[in-house]
Amino acid sequence: MKINGERLLQNLRKLRTFGATENGVVRQTLSPVDMASREWIQARMVEAGLTTHMDGVSNIFGCSPNDGPALLIGSHSDTQPRGGWLDGALGVMYGLEIARAAREDKSTADLAIDAVSLADEEGTFLGCLGSRSLTGTLTPEMEQAAVNADGVSLAQALLDTGLSERPRTRLDAERYAGYLEAHIEQGPYLEEASNQIGVVTSIVGIRGCVLHFQGQQNHAGTTPMARRQDAGVTLFEFATELRKRFMSLADERTVWTIGRVTLLPGAPSIIPGQAEMQIQFRDQSVERLDAMWAVLESLLGETNAAGGVQVRMQSVRSPIVPTHMDDRFQEHIAAAAERHSPGRWMRMLSAAGHDPMYLSHHLPCAMVFIPSIDGISHDFAEDSHDEDIVAGCQVMADAAEAILRARS
Amino acid sequence: MKINGERLLQNLRKLRTFGATENGVVRQTLSPVDMASREWIQARMVEAGLTTHMDGVSNIFGCSPNDGPALLIGSHSDTQPRGGWLDGALGVMYGLEIARAAREDKSTADLAIDAVSLADEEGTFLGCLGSRSLTGTLTPEMEQAAVNADGVSLAQALLDTGLSERPRTRLDAERYAGYLEAHIEQGPYLEEASNQIGVVTSIVGIRGCVLHFQGQQNHAGTTPMARRQDAGVTLFEFATELRKRFMSLADERTVWTIGRVTLLPGAPSIIPGQAEMQIQFRDQSVERLDAMWAVLESLLGETNAAGGVQVRMQSVRSPIVPTHMDDRFQEHIAAAAERHSPGRWMRMLSAAGHDPMYLSHHLPCAMVFIPSIDGISHDFAEDSHDEDIVAGCQVMADAAEAILRARS
Repeated sequence: MKINGERLLQNLRKLRTFGATENGVVRQTLSPVDMASREWIQARMVEAGLTTHMDGVSNIFGCSPNDGPALLIGSHSDTQPRGGWLDGALGVMYGLEIARAAREDKSTADLAIDAVSLADEEGTFLGCLGSRSLTGTLTPEMEQAAVNADGVSLAQALLDTGLSERPRTRLDAERYAGYLEAHIEQGPYLEEASNQIGVVTSIVGIRGCVLHFQGQQNHAGTTPMARRQDAGVTLFEFATELRKRFMSLADERTVWTIGRVTLLPGAPSIIPGQAEMQIQFRDQSVERLDAMWAVLESLLGETNAAGGVQVRMQSVRSPIVPTHMDDRFQEHIAAAAERHSPGRWMRMLSAAGHDPMYLSHHLPCAMVFIPSIDGISHDFAEDSHDEDIVAGCQVMADAAEAILRARS
Repeated sequence: MKINGERLLQNLRKLRTFGATENGVVRQTLSPVDMASREWIQARMVEAGLTTHMDGVSNIFGCSPNDGPALLIGSHSDTQPRGGWLDGALGVMYGLEIARAAREDKSTADLAIDAVSLADEEGTFLGCLGSRSLTGTLTPEMEQAAVNADGVSLAQALLDTGLSERPRTRLDAERYAGYLEAHIEQGPYLEEASNQIGVVTSIVGIRGCVLHFQGQQNHAGTTPMARRQDAGVTLFEFATELRKRFMSLADERTVWTIGRVTLLPGAPSIIPGQAEMQIQFRDQSVERLDAMWAVLESLLGETNAAGGVQVRMQSVRSPIVPTHMDDRFQEHIAAAAERHSPGRWMRMLSAAGHDPMYLSHHLPCAMVFIPSIDGISHDFAEDSHDEDIVAGCQVMADAAEAILRARS
């Protein structure tokens, strides 16, 4: 099948107008502009000959009238608080375009391709809300705790948008042969290698915790250095030593970040009696994540054994295990990439989280990346070249056809 | 002269009732309870045969009817937001008791000893407001910028207390031979050495600055370690390296503190693009303070020369130069200490700031310390033993007599 590149770009540009702000987009989950954009997307699904519905968490589906085995293709159409125009939107418009192109081409009109926009992957209320709901892993506790940055609860937002009583769609594992998602890379690798297509091998696993340092608050003038228990000093040394130890474990794709630090009471003339730091690390290998966690625990033990400032660890997120993309799907994408962008594709990791983290427990999944200009994402400046956007969609369309043909 | 220890303790305990909160005192500058306590102190000054007045910044004076050369003796009677009962109060009550005891004893009734309570040493509105005003170093700019933690300006507070139009007393350098202040040590040295009296040699100098680290904010998953410009990482390494270099310069009384750190934007999944830390260091030697400043600047230069995250320094306070106590005054105090607490006194630094930082530019100054139980201060738990309180006052009384006799 041949996708319609001009139509794809026009749809992406139109979707961009919902919540357009400066050069970027502000279209957060369940906001009025998000709901308006969902209505517009559903109208496009109908135009494509798909049966559409929105479920009780605002997931929207456009289903082919054909029987399965089907492919579900999509991403999320809502954005970060100050998001770019392609993050999520690209994958949703790919699903729409491929479902439509398949129906328009006689040779593929028999294929079952469904398009989807999954709610709140970015976590305005709860990260991957849509795919958690779809796979039945959304618990009442998670849902009750879900609140946006303005303090509005998910329950209230669903009530306000009239979705509270609507049924929530569960994944029909009988129908689907798999899930495909396209995304901008959000990193520098494709652009640097002058590649056009990334075939994702895994989504990295993520672990995180908060470390609490307990020292002794005191006067910054009258307390001699030798008798201080300065929680800040211990934190700085811990962070510096942890970096050294992590570096000796890491490969070139391992990442870790201390994103937040607090010293208390935080006054220039008072020795910090308490300090906190939040650390997160990501890798494709469970073994390496385990090894990093062990290093963290062992440094913590050494620090406590030394006396003085004491450290304690608090888990702040459920560990996310690495998600491996389906091997056969990867092969089909690689073959299509070689056909359309010969020599200009590569296998690569996704270092950011995406809905396949949840869907892959129920369905084979695969992802296609296209280059991010300057590697920028989660920022108004996020952008990609038109030719890469179109090429990515054609590659995914070819792969989808090959996957379904191989199944039938 | 012989001071009346019981009267001194009674007065201290009565003053403690103004703003008594739990075990401590909340009596901040120009608050109703502070003003009430000032009225009570003035009544005690009158009782002691002194002429009293409050000036336009709430300084209160109790002046001997005798001609000079006079000694001014006192401290501050207002407190920290959650202050102890002795910080400041001790020195004010010493001034009152010594002025009164001198008048009561025929052998010293000719001496001119004036008592004083200087406003706002702790900086509720502006640190050392009273001594700055007294010495003519309070500028209109400083005064306009002075605001308390509740957002009330100094000007408004002076209006509210009816002091706006009142004249501000200037130091009469003709009258005064010097200024004496007693204070709790606020540190552990006297108690640890089982000493009762500290003869202060200097008040340490203080320098401080804020360092701004400018990196590149980015996605904590998709940005490889090798291409990050993580402002937080540079800050941790800067702090750890600075500590090493300062340690090689320091003597056992040199102190430095990083009391406040901020990473921006401060989210677990975002590489900090900016970071800030506030550093302060104190020493008795200008040369060492200069050397520490030079170390700071050189580390800053090395960091910037390495490329990546860039650091810039912002001064946040005027440097306070070390203040040396008058040598002859120190000798008189040492002699009195040896008489009353033989072998149980020591010369020592003041690592906290006090009003002599301003007064010493105009008058010879000296300070007497008594032990702080467990070295605690600026806390409700602050306390000293009665016998030390009484001994310190008698030592200061003897020293005052000796100083004035040596002058006449």
